[in-house]
Amino acid sequence: MSQALKEYLSFCQHRVEHALEQRLPKPDILPQRLHQAMRYCVLDGGKRTRPLLTYCTGKTLGLPPDSLDGAACAVEFIHVYSLIHDDLPAMDDDELRRGKPTCHVAFDEATAILAGDALQALAFEVLAHDPSIAASAANRLQMLTVLARASGSQGMVGGQAIDLAAVGTQLSLPELENMHIHKTGALIRASVNLATLAKPDLDPVLATKLDHYAKCIGLSFQVKDDILDEESDTATLGKTQGKDKDNNKPTYPALLGMAGAKQKARELHEMALANLSVFGDEADLLRDLSLYIIERSH
Amino acid sequence: MSQALKEYLSFCQHRVEHALEQRLPKPDILPQRLHQAMRYCVLDGGKRTRPLLTYCTGKTLGLPPDSLDGAACAVEFIHVYSLIHDDLPAMDDDELRRGKPTCHVAFDEATAILAGDALQALAFEVLAHDPSIAASAANRLQMLTVLARASGSQGMVGGQAIDLAAVGTQLSLPELENMHIHKTGALIRASVNLATLAKPDLDPVLATKLDHYAKCIGLSFQVKDDILDEESDTATLGKTQGKDKDNNKPTYPALLGMAGAKQKARELHEMALANLSVFGDEADLLRDLSLYIIERSH
Repeated sequence: MSQALKEYLSFCQHRVEHALEQRLPKPDILPQRLHQAMRYCVLDGGKRTRPLLTYCTGKTLGLPPDSLDGAACAVEFIHVYSLIHDDLPAMDDDELRRGKPTCHVAFDEATAILAGDALQALAFEVLAHDPSIAASAANRLQMLTVLARASGSQGMVGGQAIDLAAVGTQLSLPELENMHIHKTGALIRASVNLATLAKPDLDPVLATKLDHYAKCIGLSFQVKDDILDEESDTATLGKTQGKDKDNNKPTYPALLGMAGAKQKARELHEMALANLSVFGDEADLLRDLSLYIIERSH
Repeated sequence: MSQALKEYLSFCQHRVEHALEQRLPKPDILPQRLHQAMRYCVLDGGKRTRPLLTYCTGKTLGLPPDSLDGAACAVEFIHVYSLIHDDLPAMDDDELRRGKPTCHVAFDEATAILAGDALQALAFEVLAHDPSIAASAANRLQMLTVLARASGSQGMVGGQAIDLAAVGTQLSLPELENMHIHKTGALIRASVNLATLAKPDLDPVLATKLDHYAKCIGLSFQVKDDILDEESDTATLGKTQGKDKDNNKPTYPALLGMAGAKQKARELHEMALANLSVFGDEADLLRDLSLYIIERSH
């Protein structure tokens, strides 16, 4: 990771941690257990990739970070709620998340369902009402529409449904791509698009370029995840298959071969950069981020 | 139920059924099973009490019904999502709802969680974007804030958390009331407040009166539910305790005695009427509805 991106990531992580804390209900407000669960899951964890994207896009467009706190928190609340629900026994049944017991383990299943539900409502409340957002009322409504669509049955939740239905089946490459575009891609695009909507009178051409950039890195992130999963397997003694392959989930290396998957990641990075060619140095963090995504080792 | 209310209820039920159907993703859109589950739970069921309240409030304020379709659908989507999640095995573990198998029984648990999640997102999408809503962008944002707060951890979801925590404990009357004010009251008030926000330049005094009316009928509805539950028990051979008492859940008759509970329902109805005294005949449906709530036999 470039030094500039490293520093900006650290800045964003601190910034959004504080912004999230301020927007979460305090742990002593009734119902306390629910609010404690929400705070347990949101605070002090995660790479905050989506808020980072919102802030980096805003920086590219010359927006001050404090005008993006509400949007960054809203996407992170949606992301965390989706993790809580995905971890439930009826879904992926995971017991660890970000190095801590998952919500239904640390609290209980009912509280985990409700904490996720409440975080989703909080995301929309923040976007509708947060004073940090300086956008016009009309743009704010567009931000709400973007986040709702990205989260819903034809966005993130739809992707999770496609993913669950795909376990044990043979997906084609377009089907695998469609799953990722929904499951993680939609919210990553929303993270960028909320920032472009926060910029008054932005040239729609630039907004579209940034949206396409987001689409590319959303996919390259998944391709790289699959590659890392596969490579860490072969490096790990006594373990011959990755978690996704264990679950019979389709992966890019399985469909394209390892060389093909690496080529795919590289092409997506090139496309991401091509969409940034209309910008100067101010988009360097976005360029660094795209490179980091395909070069990271974990 | 008065003839006028009966006819208007039927009109609203037909109207909102069509409006909901139009706003739900079609069953052949991917992911099909998720969309089928959403439609299964939303369509062709329920009394549509919350949409009725939205339309009745709008009628009191002289708003045409077609300007309220989006708001009516949004509250109903939130209501239905909450039912789907409340019915889950980790929550109330119910197998029947509106005379049909619950979502997790008819489909599966993962699909039920996701269908609820997607319906919540759809509610906010509709409120943010639906062309039926004629309110200004600023008022629309207020509608979104109202619905998000009513749905979240200090509204409906919070009430469900309080309810779950109360099983097997002794609640005082204020605690019982607090639970109902959150669990069902918040969304009932939102159903009314979305309509007042749809009226341009409404005198805030009138908006407050209607909000207080909603608060009264939200509570009287719960008091009457408890009374009906208790009375149907004694009438039912071989069953000596109602479902809520079975679950050790607190009830108004348990706390106030049967006569006290009936007195409470009557007082709430009188308070509801008092809040409507600033209105003429145009609020008669709201008056009829309040009376119906405390006089109904099921």
